[in-house]
Parts: sequence; C-alpha cells; structure tokens
Amino acid sequence: MTAYDDFTAHIAKYHDLLCILNTLKWDMRTMMPAAGASSRGRQLASLTTLAKSIFVSDETARLLDAAENEVASADSDSYRARALRQTRDAYEIQKRIPAELVARMAALGAESEAVWAKARAENDFPRFKPYLKGMLALNIELAEAIGYDDHPFDALILQFEPGMTAARLHQIFAELKAGISPLLARIVAVDEPLAIDLWEAEYDLAAQKKLCRELTELIGFDYDRGRLDSAPHPFEISFTRDDVRITTRYDANYLPMSLFAALHEAGHGLYEQNIAPELTRTALTADFLGQYAVGGASFGAHEFSSRLWENQIGRSPAFWGRHFGRLRAAFPQQLAAADAELFYRAVNRVRPSLIRVEADEVTYNLHIMLRTEIEIALLEGAIAVDDLPEVWNAKMQEYLGLTPPDDRRGVLQDVHWSFGGFGSFPTYTIGNIMAAQVLAAAREQMPDLAAQLAAGDYQPLLTWLTENIYRHGRAYRADELLKRVSGESLNTAPLLAYLENKYIDLYALN
Amino acid sequence: MTAYDDFTAHIAKYHDLLCILNTLKWDMRTMMPAAGASSRGRQLASLTTLAKSIFVSDETARLLDAAENEVASADSDSYRARALRQTRDAYEIQKRIPAELVARMAALGAESEAVWAKARAENDFPRFKPYLKGMLALNIELAEAIGYDDHPFDALILQFEPGMTAARLHQIFAELKAGISPLLARIVAVDEPLAIDLWEAEYDLAAQKKLCRELTELIGFDYDRGRLDSAPHPFEISFTRDDVRITTRYDANYLPMSLFAALHEAGHGLYEQNIAPELTRTALTADFLGQYAVGGASFGAHEFSSRLWENQIGRSPAFWGRHFGRLRAAFPQQLAAADAELFYRAVNRVRPSLIRVEADEVTYNLHIMLRTEIEIALLEGAIAVDDLPEVWNAKMQEYLGLTPPDDRRGVLQDVHWSFGGFGSFPTYTIGNIMAAQVLAAAREQMPDLAAQLAAGDYQPLLTWLTENIYRHGRAYRADELLKRVSGESLNTAPLLAYLENKYIDLYALN
Repeated sequence: MTAYDDFTAHIAKYHDLLCILNTLKWDMRTMMPAAGASSRGRQLASLTTLAKSIFVSDETARLLDAAENEVASADSDSYRARALRQTRDAYEIQKRIPAELVARMAALGAESEAVWAKARAENDFPRFKPYLKGMLALNIELAEAIGYDDHPFDALILQFEPGMTAARLHQIFAELKAGISPLLARIVAVDEPLAIDLWEAEYDLAAQKKLCRELTELIGFDYDRGRLDSAPHPFEISFTRDDVRITTRYDANYLPMSLFAALHEAGHGLYEQNIAPELTRTALTADFLGQYAVGGASFGAHEFSSRLWENQIGRSPAFWGRHFGRLRAAFPQQLAAADAELFYRAVNRVRPSLIRVEADEVTYNLHIMLRTEIEIALLEGAIAVDDLPEVWNAKMQEYLGLTPPDDRRGVLQDVHWSFGGFGSFPTYTIGNIMAAQVLAAAREQMPDLAAQLAAGDYQPLLTWLTENIYRHGRAYRADELLKRVSGESLNTAPLLAYLENKYIDLYALN
Repeated sequence: MTAYDDFTAHIAKYHDLLCILNTLKWDMRTMMPAAGASSRGRQLASLTTLAKSIFVSDETARLLDAAENEVASADSDSYRARALRQTRDAYEIQKRIPAELVARMAALGAESEAVWAKARAENDFPRFKPYLKGMLALNIELAEAIGYDDHPFDALILQFEPGMTAARLHQIFAELKAGISPLLARIVAVDEPLAIDLWEAEYDLAAQKKLCRELTELIGFDYDRGRLDSAPHPFEISFTRDDVRITTRYDANYLPMSLFAALHEAGHGLYEQNIAPELTRTALTADFLGQYAVGGASFGAHEFSSRLWENQIGRSPAFWGRHFGRLRAAFPQQLAAADAELFYRAVNRVRPSLIRVEADEVTYNLHIMLRTEIEIALLEGAIAVDDLPEVWNAKMQEYLGLTPPDDRRGVLQDVHWSFGGFGSFPTYTIGNIMAAQVLAAAREQMPDLAAQLAAGDYQPLLTWLTENIYRHGRAYRADELLKRVSGESLNTAPLLAYLENKYIDLYALN
C-alpha cells in the first residue's frame, strides 16, 4: 500500500457514511411515516457528527500529509492531485468552523424551519422574525469562521459555488437585468391567454407517472441504476453512480408539474450516473465541506445539468414536436383539441408571478437576483430583518411589476433562510447561465445535434456531456469546466441570446 | 449528568447507528435498484465496522463501569439495572470475538450465500459443499471464541435465544415429536382435497394489497408509525417504535401467500410498535451482541408474536367467520362458491411437504427439528458435510414420510447455513411454543377474549400483550416473560393441546 492508497481507503469509508446520510434523507422525504421524523432527526444528527469527527481528525491530517508528499511530484492536473487538493481545501475550512457553531446552527435551524413552516401557513412574518435574526447572526459567525477577503457573502457562497463572489455576481446580475428586463416588457405587452386552457382537464396520476418514467428514460436516465418516486418537494439524490434516485410531484390538473420536475431531476441524475466509475467513493464525488455525497462540480454545475434537460431540451419545440404524440396517446380526451405547437406554447408562457418555483424561464432569474441582493444587504447590515417585507415587496415591484398580497406569497415563500442556507440561491441562476453556455458549445461542436434532437436521439448529446463534463465528477471547478468546453468562463451572453431567440420567435416580437 | 446519563447518551448514539443499519437493509430489500448492491454492501460494511468499534471501546467500558457503580444499589429488577446487565453481557462476549474472525465470516459468508443461490438454482450441492464446510469451521471457531459449558451449539444459539441449550432443545423436541407424529399420522390417513380448489382463480394484486393493509390495520398495526411494502422474502424491521416497516409478497393465484405473510410480519410489527417509549434508543430495544436494533426479548420471543397473530388468530375459525365477507367483497367471482368454513379449511390443510416455508402448523416444527438436529451433529462432528444430502433425505423420510426428488427441494432449500446463521432455526419452534403458551394464559386471564375475537375486536388482546410482554422490550428474557405471564417456563403442552384441539375438530378425528 502506498500513502495515497491509505488515504483513499480512509476517504472511501468516510464517503460511505455520506452516501448513507443521503439514503436516510431520501427515505425521509419519500417513504418515512410522519411519526418517524423525530427518531430520524436523531439518527441524522448522530451520523453527521460521527462523520465530521472522522473527517476532521488527526488521522485524516496524517494520511493527507503523507499522500500529498507522495503525490507532490505527480502531474498536478491528475485526478489524484485534484482529489488531494479538494480534500485539503475542505479540511482546512472545516477545521476553522467550530463544532459548537455547527451544533448551534443545526439546533436553531431545525427549530427555525419548523417555525417558518407555521409562519408561512399563517402568513405571520413577525413570528418568524426572531428566528431569521438568529440564523442571520449565525451565518455571519460562520462567514467570519470560514474567512473572506472582500465580503462575508463570499465565505458563505464558497460552500456551494467555490470561486464565486458577491462582486462577480453583481456584474453578472447587471448583465442579466439589462437583457431580461426589456425582453420581459416586450413579452408582457403582447401576452394573451392561449385559445384553450389545457390545465382544466384532469390527468390520471398513474398515466402521468408512466409518462414521467418514459420521458426520463428517453433522455437516458438508467433505471437499472435508479428509481423515480414522488415527493412533495422534488429532488435528486445519489448513493454512488449505481444508485441514483429522482422524484417528482403530481398535480391532477397541471400536467407540466410532474413532467418538468421529472425532467429536471433526471437532468441531475444523468450527471451522477455518468461520472467515471473510478471516482466512486473518492473526494471527487463528494462535497467534503458540506459533508454531502454529490458528484457535480458545484451546486451551480449540478443545476446546469437539470436546467439543460428541463428547459433547453425539455421545453424546446423539437422535444414536443417529437413527443407530443406520446402525450396525446396517454391523454386522448384531455389533449384532443391540442397539437404540439399549442402544448409548446402552453408550457412556455411567460408571465411575471409571485412564486419563484412556478416562474418561467424569462422571469426566473429575476426572482434569484432579488433574493441574492437581499442576502448580501442583510449580511452587510444595509437592511434589517425587521424591514424585510417592505424591501421584498419593493423589489418585486421593481423587477416584476407585482406586489405580493401577503408575506406568504412574498418574503415567506422559500425555506432556504429558515435553516440558514445563505449563499445558495445564486447557484440556480449560475445553472441557467451554464446550461445555455454549454449547449451553445455543444451545438458548435456537434454539427448533427439539431437533427439528432429533432429525431429524439439524445444519446449523442449525453455522450458529449459525459465526455466533456459529467465523467469528471468534482475534479474540475465549474469555471474550469466551462473553459474546457467553451473556451470562456461564466458568460451571460449565451443565456440572453437563447432567451431572446426563443421568446422573440414564440411571441412573434419581430 | 449522572454516570448513568452519560452511559445512556453514549448508547443512544450507538443505537442510532443500529437503526440506520436497519434502514439500509430495508431499502436494500424493498427499493434499491439491482445495480446498487455493490456500493450498498460497502456502506453496510463501513457502518457495521464503525458501530462495532464504538461499542467495543474503552469509552463503553469506562461509561459502563461508572454507571454500574452508580446503579449498584438500585433495584436489580429496574429497567436501568437490566439495561446495564444486558450491555455488560453483550460487551463481554463481543470482546471475546476477534474482529478478524468477524471479517472472515462476513467475507466468506457473502461469497458463500451467492454460491448457495446458484447451487440451489442448479441443484448442485457439490458446488456449495466447500463453502458450507468453510462456514461450519468458522462457526466452530466462533463458538470457541464465545465459550460454552456443554456444547458448541450453546454458544451459537446464545446469539439468538439467550438461555437456550442443545440439551434443553433435545428434551423439547422429544416432547413435540411424541405429540405431533401420531396426530400427523391420523390426519394423513383421512386428508382429502377440498371440494373446490380456490387457488386456481386469479386474485388481482392491487386488491390483495388493499386487503393486507386492512387486515393488518384491523389487528392493530399503526400505519401512522409504519408502512407495508412488498419484498421477495417478507420481513419486518424497525427504526424505533415510531417507524416500523413490514413487507409481504404476492402470488396472483395463491391468495394466502400475501395475507398470512402480512399478518405474520404485522405480528412482529405489533411487538415493536408497543414497546414503552422510554426504552427507545436504549439497550432494551437492541441486540448489542448481534448489533441489531430489535425490541423483542429474543428471536424466539419475536417469533411468538408473529406466529400468534398469523396462526393462532389469523388461521382461526373466528377470524374468517368474522372477515370472510370482506374477502368475498374483494373477490366476488373468485370466491363465489366458497364460504367462511371452506376458506378456513383451505388455509389450514395439513400435508407433509418438502419445503419448510410452505409447511402447515402441524408439520412445520418437524422441519425445524430436522435442521437443528443436523446442525448439532455437524458441530459435534457426528456427521460430515459430505453426507448431508443422504442425512437430510433420511430424516425427511423419518419425520414426514417423503424423500426430496432433488437437493434443491432438500438440503439446499434454506439460506441460513450459507451465511453462517447456525443456531437460529430453533427460534421458529420456540416462537410457536410461546405463542400457544401465551394465548392460553391470555384466555385464562381474559374471560371475554373468545367473544372479543369472534367480534373482530383485537384491541383488548393487544392491550394485554402490550401490558404483559411488548412494553418491556428486551428487559426480560423470553423465559422470564413466560414465567411472569403463565407461571411456567417454556412448555410444549399448550402448543400440543392447541394443535390437537384444532385439527381433531377440523379433520373430525374423534
């Protein structure tokens, strides 16, 4: 055994624990009877603490030192060198975060999330306020513990999107706003309800489920190494590339709910299923800082894959041109008066709306900017938690021309702040930007891609994505991957071009 | 914090890991895609090793010593004193079992089980033979490590049924044989096929599933704290009393398969769901020797509950007198020509058969005796693995008057020996004996029980079982529980009386 082998064996066992934590979370969100929540909470806490004590330990330090000495001369671009660097980075940061801070965040976070759920249901922001203040204070403590050069937000986003900063987001958001706001105004000026409202019919849930399975299988999700279940908040999670679980949710009337959530989560799943097998149980298929077994380069990079398959592929005219027949065969009466064109329009209608998770492709990123700007201002102390409802509503008016009628549909709508997940919102927008950028690169490099997609042949694209992105797991940072694929780092132009092309055509704005 | 509190907190965290292992096993047997097996195996191995290192540790020894000193003066019958004694017992034995022996057993056991599965499918005993020899040798090593007074079998059964010995089983089996063999001969002499074969019809699986859920709910299984799923080999498993999972399997023709497996596993589940809440996450809801989160007093005591609900209740005339209408409502065509009486006879027909898991109540224990006697003789060296097929077939002829046409339906039928589970077979018969003994005591102490059961009211029996047995978890040994409930230790008379009464009546043998 070499020192690197010793290190790898130690990390593999730690990785197993992270996969087990994922299994517990999957079960909790899909299968567990309600009364099991309390003991499951204890089990998660015990294993999380144990896992952290195994990672932040003298043993890890010793094995890491020895392996680094051994690999020092090796190619710094190799998977080995990258696995060591990522482990070292996570180790040094984890060491700085006091265990008692983690414990306080977990304790207050659990209570805060429960209070948030009640406060949202009862439209009672004042009730949630003290908890949000507490979670904000703890996030500031966390940022100080992690350390940063410019802005506390940079320390927090490091947990989700290494390399991203508040300053760079400021620039990115300015570019997006400059492109999206005028486009949105032009769309809003001409938007009208479609001739037929397809979402008044009832769509049998078993038939929806069958379709979700078929469509996700068509784009390449491998059910020999995965499952599809239902969950109130759809998600994807994996316990190595050989066991990847996706979920969706069903609405008897609103058919797009299940179909696009399934495509979205299958997009996440395709990333995990196509990581190189030799990266299984290594640092390159886990986020050791967040103690989370996940194979993508970053949260944003993972979101790139889900958004690419859900939106760029799944909401394209080619996709429904090819598959609408399948849909109508499943729902002959409900879709009797529709055709591929109408269905395409129905699932791409753009309207400013109050709720992020229901937003269309054009307005979605505005919801993210609003949240991120508020987070940054809260961390700076530029705004106060007490003023949040007013700040939120003013920004909604500014970006979307709407004022929420209550906090339930305003500042209380998202769970993220309640458990302390400051810094994670921008990764959704980063995913959107990357998806457009990567697919633009694929189109350039794959002359037959448009024809393949029109023919419903997704294998060439999946192979290209695997070769260029998926297989590397977390070996490269999101920006490195983008440079390898497109020659550029994160760039908003392809997303703006994609949105303009698609919606100018769809709304006949020329 | 007292020393006992410190001990309890340590044990609670270890208990969480055992519950997590159960969750992983449940998922593996019900939900996991086939390709997940290999990584799941690694995850189970990592967590099992980690759990053992936490239990067999200086920390456990120190906390246990301190808590014992503190509790020494307390009532030796208290849950606290019992929790400490059980932990001490398991700790002292676990310490004696070398980790490398456990590792060798796990490694060879996994391989051996896979070879067994192939050997059974291909009726190829010679292929399995070297593995069985290996597992036998490892079990002898294990028995020597654990230690025993009289017989190596006593060390092995200690893992499943503390207090039981080969000598006592010898006596029990002699009594059972003396009662069962003549009864069986009388039945066989008169048994004839029923007027109608109910198992030629097809029974819709969704309707079967609904019935399984209804019947298990009727006897008291709490679905707010549990689930029912399907599994090729039905089982029950729990992750604390608040999350108890049962499974069954479905045969489109043979309706009793799903119904009785569901009642059987719900019987296990009722035990777990009705343990006193204060025993959650303590030594009194886990088998620390077997590293298994399970709440019953022993394997046999757990089997008492499943057999009681499956057989004593579920196969009784009162049960089908009450519920046949429900069955016929679900399957009006399939059961058009049947009535409660015919159904009762159909699910209680007695016939010597080759396969243990398909055996009726009368012949079942003969299958267990045969296996146990072979195990004991193997451990003594009185018979050799090479001679097993002949020994098996001779005993089948002696006990059941049948000779298996092949090893697949003979010595190769059960998985137990392949992974090394020597000593576990007798717990099935112990469960049968206990079930009869406990229900006889309940009938004596509950004058209205027969009327309640006839009326389909199972709550009074469940309350009585909870009060007398279930709530104590593992606080009492099986024999202690029996003495508290019936004034006697394990006694074959009630089982023999139950079988005679039931089948003399059913077959009109008088």
